Amino acid sequence: MNPTLMVENAVPVMLTKTLFDPIRSELDQVEQVLASTLSPYRRRISDLMNHLKHFKGKRLRPVLVILAAKACGRVVSSHFTLAAVIEMIHTATLVHDDVLDEASIRRHVDTVNARWGNKTSILLGDLLFTHAFHLSATSGDARICERIGEATNRVCAGELFQLTEHGNLHLTEDAYFEMIDGKTAALTEVACRIGAMLAGANDHVCESLAIFGQKLGLAFQVADDLLDLMGDETKTGKTLGTDLEQQKMTLPLIHLLEVVDGAEADSLRDAMRHPTEANIQRILTALRVHGSLEYAQRRADELIAEGRAALQCLPSSTAKTMLEQLGTWAVRRQS
Amino acid sequence: MNPTLMVENAVPVMLTKTLFDPIRSELDQVEQVLASTLSPYRRRISDLMNHLKHFKGKRLRPVLVILAAKACGRVVSSHFTLAAVIEMIHTATLVHDDVLDEASIRRHVDTVNARWGNKTSILLGDLLFTHAFHLSATSGDARICERIGEATNRVCAGELFQLTEHGNLHLTEDAYFEMIDGKTAALTEVACRIGAMLAGANDHVCESLAIFGQKLGLAFQVADDLLDLMGDETKTGKTLGTDLEQQKMTLPLIHLLEVVDGAEADSLRDAMRHPTEANIQRILTALRVHGSLEYAQRRADELIAEGRAALQCLPSSTAKTMLEQLGTWAVRRQS
Repeated sequence: MNPTLMVENAVPVMLTKTLFDPIRSELDQVEQVLASTLSPYRRRISDLMNHLKHFKGKRLRPVLVILAAKACGRVVSSHFTLAAVIEMIHTATLVHDDVLDEASIRRHVDTVNARWGNKTSILLGDLLFTHAFHLSATSGDARICERIGEATNRVCAGELFQLTEHGNLHLTEDAYFEMIDGKTAALTEVACRIGAMLAGANDHVCESLAIFGQKLGLAFQVADDLLDLMGDETKTGKTLGTDLEQQKMTLPLIHLLEVVDGAEADSLRDAMRHPTEANIQRILTALRVHGSLEYAQRRADELIAEGRAALQCLPSSTAKTMLEQLGTWAVRRQS
Repeated sequence: MNPTLMVENAVPVMLTKTLFDPIRSELDQVEQVLASTLSPYRRRISDLMNHLKHFKGKRLRPVLVILAAKACGRVVSSHFTLAAVIEMIHTATLVHDDVLDEASIRRHVDTVNARWGNKTSILLGDLLFTHAFHLSATSGDARICERIGEATNRVCAGELFQLTEHGNLHLTEDAYFEMIDGKTAALTEVACRIGAMLAGANDHVCESLAIFGQKLGLAFQVADDLLDLMGDETKTGKTLGTDLEQQKMTLPLIHLLEVVDGAEADSLRDAMRHPTEANIQRILTALRVHGSLEYAQRRADELIAEGRAALQCLPSSTAKTMLEQLGTWAVRRQS
């Protein structure tokens, strides 16, 4: 590994409530767009719309749109609209994901499928997807619609790829990265790209911001895999080892199966197919012994370093520093 | 009823294979767009993509795009792209509908959910929706994206409305028309509107074509309700009385419950809640006795007459005549 690609000063960054204070007023405007654009549905489905509030998470994608815009010099009202569009698409994928995962709890409340059933979830997801597209077109800019369409389509293709590969314990690292590129990186990439585009940045800067967003998304997902294996349940709010139990291939596992000899790999795959408590412990031990967790952490750090390198085309600014901090947080977060 | 609003010469129009011969080469080009734009997915999910071929139906929406274009004077290559976009959105809704309806057969083959499960169906629908949006943006025209987004969003809102109102045996005629406006008319409307827009028609003509498309969609759906109650199973390929069995409110039923006295209406609602063979026969008899089937047919005829009136702004042409024939077919079809 090239040491210059390491994350410098990789001190854990906490995602505190005050971290985004410098862009609080912009984020509030995104919330206003979200509330007002969805309000016509309240006449028919107010309970469902109210329930979505509980799903409000880190608002990572709106944060990226606004920070990219500020780092490129200006924020215009379309930024709030498009940040809302991207968040809405993200919410649509969560609603459909919960059906796919048969999940009953998200962020400590019932999922839509648990409370209203799968049918309502499917249609609510569709409604959010299509509303987002309609809203994106109000920008009057077909290039923006094209980027949003392309990214969302990549998300769905990634999810479908993940579903068809489920249970394939021979998944390669390349296929893994192709999968998470769609599932997670497509939306963070388009958030940064559109932030730059609407700020009037030139093509090179737009492309650089897109690279940052993509690497951030990939690294974020690898870090997510690691949290599932070595996180603190009280902080993540999730049960550890869920990926292992669901036989979901993650980067540390792919590394492990790659570095051990063929017979050991077969035996580990057998353990993965029968994820008993003892087998999970065996796999966790093997991951530690063979440096697979460190490998994944290193890949995440490299990705963030590549992302930070792409930001070098930008002048110094508070927003640029915040993007860099967000990168460090993505790979060193504890929840 | 205003007699001038009747469909003149309402002789049944058969949707024969040769009916669309005058636009065969344009329809073939739409098929080519569909095949080539979806081909990148073949690497990962070729079985699924091949299966969609079985769902190929009447291609009503592409026919409307092409006929609207020709009636307005010219067909350009964007027409083929946008006709494919609208057909893809229609297919996406069919894939999700089959999950909602727990349907196992569509057009004589397994539904996607029956063969690959609900999860694959949800993601395949999402993939088609988002691919369609991406493709629509390649037109480079944000007005087109906005129309497509708005129409698709109306489809989803209509479907969600239908789901939340399921089992409401007090549904009003206004609510019924609001529902089918989204479910069916939004896409036929946008097909005609975009056909005109891309042909360079002026705003008045675009609006007139949109009205024709909307009325056609509404009438088509009312005719569908009638076919379920009085069609010929061997021609429709569907089991009669399915709507009644599923307690789905349709226009004849709404009329019936409106014209009988309160006690009779309550008793009929009770029969609808228990759709035994005897109760279904009782309802069918009541529909005939109270003229509810004729009422729905008349409403469908009126809608088509209104749609035809909107076409009067167009000069005579083969395409205009075909649009008029399509209107008659929509309300007098036997399958």
